[in-house]
Amino acid sequence: MTVTEQLGRRVKEASRQLAALSSGKKNEALAAVADAIWARREEILAANAADIAAGREAGLREGLIDRLTLTEERVLGICEAVRKLIALEDPAGVIESGSVRPNGLRIEKVRVPIGAVGIIFESRPNVAADGAALCLKSGNAVLLRGGKEAIRSNTALVSVMRAAIAGCGLPEDSVLLVEDTSRQSANEMMKLHGVLDLLIPRGGAGLIRAVVENATVPVIETGVGNCHIYLEQTADPEMAERITVNAKTSRVSVCNAAESLLVDEGCAADLLPWVAKALMDRGVALRGCPKACALVPGMALADEEDYGTEYLDYVMSVKVVSGLDEAIAHIARYSTGHSEAIVTRDYAAAERFLNEVDSAAVYVNASTRFTDGGEFGLGAEIGISTQKLHARGPMGLAALTTCKYKVYGSGQIR
Amino acid sequence: MTVTEQLGRRVKEASRQLAALSSGKKNEALAAVADAIWARREEILAANAADIAAGREAGLREGLIDRLTLTEERVLGICEAVRKLIALEDPAGVIESGSVRPNGLRIEKVRVPIGAVGIIFESRPNVAADGAALCLKSGNAVLLRGGKEAIRSNTALVSVMRAAIAGCGLPEDSVLLVEDTSRQSANEMMKLHGVLDLLIPRGGAGLIRAVVENATVPVIETGVGNCHIYLEQTADPEMAERITVNAKTSRVSVCNAAESLLVDEGCAADLLPWVAKALMDRGVALRGCPKACALVPGMALADEEDYGTEYLDYVMSVKVVSGLDEAIAHIARYSTGHSEAIVTRDYAAAERFLNEVDSAAVYVNASTRFTDGGEFGLGAEIGISTQKLHARGPMGLAALTTCKYKVYGSGQIR
Repeated sequence: MTVTEQLGRRVKEASRQLAALSSGKKNEALAAVADAIWARREEILAANAADIAAGREAGLREGLIDRLTLTEERVLGICEAVRKLIALEDPAGVIESGSVRPNGLRIEKVRVPIGAVGIIFESRPNVAADGAALCLKSGNAVLLRGGKEAIRSNTALVSVMRAAIAGCGLPEDSVLLVEDTSRQSANEMMKLHGVLDLLIPRGGAGLIRAVVENATVPVIETGVGNCHIYLEQTADPEMAERITVNAKTSRVSVCNAAESLLVDEGCAADLLPWVAKALMDRGVALRGCPKACALVPGMALADEEDYGTEYLDYVMSVKVVSGLDEAIAHIARYSTGHSEAIVTRDYAAAERFLNEVDSAAVYVNASTRFTDGGEFGLGAEIGISTQKLHARGPMGLAALTTCKYKVYGSGQIR
Repeated sequence: MTVTEQLGRRVKEASRQLAALSSGKKNEALAAVADAIWARREEILAANAADIAAGREAGLREGLIDRLTLTEERVLGICEAVRKLIALEDPAGVIESGSVRPNGLRIEKVRVPIGAVGIIFESRPNVAADGAALCLKSGNAVLLRGGKEAIRSNTALVSVMRAAIAGCGLPEDSVLLVEDTSRQSANEMMKLHGVLDLLIPRGGAGLIRAVVENATVPVIETGVGNCHIYLEQTADPEMAERITVNAKTSRVSVCNAAESLLVDEGCAADLLPWVAKALMDRGVALRGCPKACALVPGMALADEEDYGTEYLDYVMSVKVVSGLDEAIAHIARYSTGHSEAIVTRDYAAAERFLNEVDSAAVYVNASTRFTDGGEFGLGAEIGISTQKLHARGPMGLAALTTCKYKVYGSGQIR
């Protein structure tokens, strides 16, 4: 048995004990975790400083160093996020439905924790605390495997959390870290079918692809968003500009940011130069089809690959389409199924877009940036699912539970 | 692009059109499918006879020949099963929840078809009709890939269904068959990530393992049941016998049949010889632990592998356990998470069993044989999920849908 499998089995064992705990006990542990992280912040920050020093030595680029960095303020943010979970309703234990069958069997469908959850993430150490707290709240044990750049920070955070959890009488192995950050440990983790009940990759498209291709553990794909804004020909020009600029530029590095702009032929000549200027004024480089390039000086010619790219940067692809049909077909071909928006004043166009675009969130006259657990009112978010099984769109605590049928009989046979 | 991928893409394309159809239109197609299968039964039965002849020539064993065989009566059964779906509620389109956010955005969570579903099955041709009808009812298009023994029957059935569907104006590719029955076509199908939205293997443990290990398409594991009956020491003896005999022998080849019997030390001497005799009288071969063997003449000694085996036959493993803790631990180790039952008169034992046994269905004082879509009141069943994501336990039509968020704005940005 590999070390990774041993760790997985310890988490699985802890998950059995966790599943039986009351919400009160789990909330007590969350409070203890938040207190402990704050109380031992010096230790955590020292470990983080060592990670940063090693990262600089290894020549990590500044963006990565920033994602890796913890400050006292960021640690406070982590503690506040953990504490916020306490007030949320515990999804485990809810009786969803039930009935008495004609033979007298009483069947209850209840929500229960999923069990042993694996999270594979990249350089942000706050995912270790975040992920552990969300799992704990919903009664799941978690095996964490972060990137090698953050190994000292993750080790410190997990050690602090484990001590706090154990101090409340919960199993220490409710949270466990894979300390081996080699590619092999990640691959071993993906194969722990029957040990881990769920695997969530949190990171870039490359990580998610590797997990989908290799995992035998059921996976939820999260967070890759090649999101589209479609300006239908009846769009209000001012609203078209406002929504496009917001969706592209309010935060370029997030999955709900827009990456591609589709404009109807019927309004492109009037609308596109204006919207394009607003984007370029904010530093966005545009790459468009020949028709779009003809309308906008300074727009580069897009190639096929551009339409399939999640830039996460000040870059946007642009295409002039002949109408709703072409827009829907283009989105079907290139979208990652995250979020798409239409700007229109036409009722039928809005309805068709909402019904026929096959994405987790479809918008009329609003920015795609709203696809988010907080904005959707879920209170907390473990990720945004771009697949269709189990959970789709922003995933709150309920997405970390499954159901179970309890059947109460009095001797029935079939 | 492989032929399998071309087929997958045709199904995906059809799924887009299917998703927009009304329940009335889908029900019309189901009626046409049932009518056509009955009207063209001679053709289907002739193809089936050719499969059977080829199977006999290839030396298939009688059990397999039986599963492969269609008769006029069985064809009528298929038609009736298709027709029964018409009366069921269409899960697609249901608005599950919704709210208006503080910024005025109105968010609706609606159920929508999953899209393109793949079903890989073995020798029973009725799965082709069944699977296609369940997918059609829920608005999904389906790519079927059956075993080579049934290829002529499946080809005939699918050709009849496609003609009936097209006759109603629905896309013909709503139902498509992979005619290549090589292992390669199955492997190609498992890798159609981004084309198929869901893959359901229907068959034995070997098929399911192969799919779990190789698929990049999200999978729902169904139907492997190493189900346990646990006779707690306060069990009513008559009920203990009745439930054990029913769970083991009422139909040995199904996934909800019991495969393993656990008996408390405290009641084993009184109860086990009696229950064992009842089982042996019905032809069940018992394989037990040394303590069980000492109590029952004629019981063979079980090895480690027996406890992990789904016999699907007149064989049962037996173990004397020291009490509830050992029973729960044994089940945690060997169960496939399908169905387990306790027979008891003790309230606390019943509660602990229900809460701590981590299976899709957990029973007190009833036979595991009730884990079934029909018995649970779902009206129809596409399989019994033994995994925890998306659906668990008997899967009805709703398990063939996912959700989508429709967001109605008036220009909101973030």
